[in-house]
Amino acid sequence: MKIALDAMGGDKAPGEIVRGGILAAEEFGVEVALVGVTSAIRAEIGKFNHPAVGVSVVDAPDIIGMAESVMVALKQKPHSGIAVGLEMVKRGEASAFVSAGNTGAGMAAALMILDRLPGVLRPALAFVTPGFKGVGLLLDVGANPDCKPQNLVQFARMGSLYMEHMYKMSRPRVGLLSNGEEEEKGNRLVREAHKLLKTSGLNFVGNVEGKDLLRGLADVVVTDGFTGNVVLKLGEGVAETIFASVKQAVEGNIPALATAFIWSPPLLDVYKGYDFRKHGGVPLLGVNGHVILAHGRSDALAIKHAVRQAQMLAQGELLRALRVALASPTGENTMVSAEES
Amino acid sequence: MKIALDAMGGDKAPGEIVRGGILAAEEFGVEVALVGVTSAIRAEIGKFNHPAVGVSVVDAPDIIGMAESVMVALKQKPHSGIAVGLEMVKRGEASAFVSAGNTGAGMAAALMILDRLPGVLRPALAFVTPGFKGVGLLLDVGANPDCKPQNLVQFARMGSLYMEHMYKMSRPRVGLLSNGEEEEKGNRLVREAHKLLKTSGLNFVGNVEGKDLLRGLADVVVTDGFTGNVVLKLGEGVAETIFASVKQAVEGNIPALATAFIWSPPLLDVYKGYDFRKHGGVPLLGVNGHVILAHGRSDALAIKHAVRQAQMLAQGELLRALRVALASPTGENTMVSAEES
Repeated sequence: MKIALDAMGGDKAPGEIVRGGILAAEEFGVEVALVGVTSAIRAEIGKFNHPAVGVSVVDAPDIIGMAESVMVALKQKPHSGIAVGLEMVKRGEASAFVSAGNTGAGMAAALMILDRLPGVLRPALAFVTPGFKGVGLLLDVGANPDCKPQNLVQFARMGSLYMEHMYKMSRPRVGLLSNGEEEEKGNRLVREAHKLLKTSGLNFVGNVEGKDLLRGLADVVVTDGFTGNVVLKLGEGVAETIFASVKQAVEGNIPALATAFIWSPPLLDVYKGYDFRKHGGVPLLGVNGHVILAHGRSDALAIKHAVRQAQMLAQGELLRALRVALASPTGENTMVSAEES
Repeated sequence: MKIALDAMGGDKAPGEIVRGGILAAEEFGVEVALVGVTSAIRAEIGKFNHPAVGVSVVDAPDIIGMAESVMVALKQKPHSGIAVGLEMVKRGEASAFVSAGNTGAGMAAALMILDRLPGVLRPALAFVTPGFKGVGLLLDVGANPDCKPQNLVQFARMGSLYMEHMYKMSRPRVGLLSNGEEEEKGNRLVREAHKLLKTSGLNFVGNVEGKDLLRGLADVVVTDGFTGNVVLKLGEGVAETIFASVKQAVEGNIPALATAFIWSPPLLDVYKGYDFRKHGGVPLLGVNGHVILAHGRSDALAIKHAVRQAQMLAQGELLRALRVALASPTGENTMVSAEES
């Protein structure tokens, strides 16, 4: 299996990206195609202390600047790392695409090149949240700042299939993020979505609140991309705060604190789960191909995990299940579960 | 100064509410009027181990059930604790009103009985957030699940005046909660509000993200009541997770962890800040009177802090400053600062 990796995307590109790709190839036995400016990639490979096994270089000489309009740039520069990598997935030359470049650009390019799966209204970014009682999936965490009620229902279908396939859950419990547990709570969007979810055939457990994200009350939590993104970044902020506290204590020669944290697995799990270096990236669900968008600040470790995530996604049958379930306008086929498909 | 306390509101009413009122009266030298069913309040006072000094009982025999429509109940039952307490504020017999009852009911009653300050479009619930670098104010945290851009601008004005008066800040920095720092990020509401805030005369520092809430990048962060409520409750959830970790470690005879936490002031501050027992409650800004709505699960400690907060609010000049600043339809008078007023 080959994973196309955007070597030029991200704050620490190409150095850390190339390193992460090499580490993933070594550790997980996956082929990594480093897509980008060949000379720059070769220079980074040359810095590695032993021969890079399982990686190849695919030339993509165009660079898209931060200030450029994504849609214009994609048309004017057909040979950027992001375009060439996604084209590889489209032609079946790669099983998945990973990028730590601008998230908006990654989504726009994926939509343009791979297109949506038939029946999909809006793709969504899905984040695996940590918690005391196992993981949950939060989506959308940023693809759609403005949503319609039908979008949230489709996110729920996609998220349910994700948890069935990637975590072998049976009929995952779907929660709707709201400002209160009661059915009548929520903004206009949420109140409408609540009605639709009740008759969706999904295992809808009702509204969940911010605090429930850590409590495992639902396996899939749906929200609009604005709220989801605020939540995701608050989680990151909390993880960094905890990390900074530990670091400060250790540097102040108070090793007890560091030790104590290691003794506290639940807290550590939560901290790790929100640390983007550990989780790797977020899948873009609803496009016709496997796409993982990693954090812009990704280092080699984060990229390694993102490639691993792409590999696991591509090994499964999620994409096929999504295609079957979403092709029906009513979503009737959604109940094709991991076992049946 | 007399504070009217809704003795019948909250999950732990009347016992913990009465206890909290007595503790506040003793500790802060404030008069507390316990408003509710006289016999029930007197029975709770009787359980106290010494004479209750500084408290009085105001009879409010009507009980509003959880299932009742607030607006209907307020009309049919004019002698509930919430109505009688707010009437005391309206008539000037109490300087502030505190309730741990249903937040929606508290807001509706405050609007009906006290009315909005002239010029106020929508009142907002304001929460003092903890952080590494001092406190910040987040509003709205639940009064308005659906907002218009002009609402967010007015929240910014009210929040700025709050920080000027309650925390003696000069020209507080106002941030707009969004899914990205760049001006073009946000949902429709946020992009429109961004434009209005730029020309508002306020010290607007642009968009802030979820992670910035802990970083002190802004003194006042405005958002719609839906997103704000999700953030507030996620913060609560994180605080409870940390608390549970400590408890678990202590019960497992690993005192190092408990000790270590005490050695870690930044983390502890953040934890405490989101613990509703410590912060007490949230002021409802924009109504014509001082109203503090406390957490439904408030115990005596939480109520004590909420009464203290009400006392501090009533001792200041915030209400007068809000009245002056918001009376102008353009908000031109907003710049009346704490020093000038």
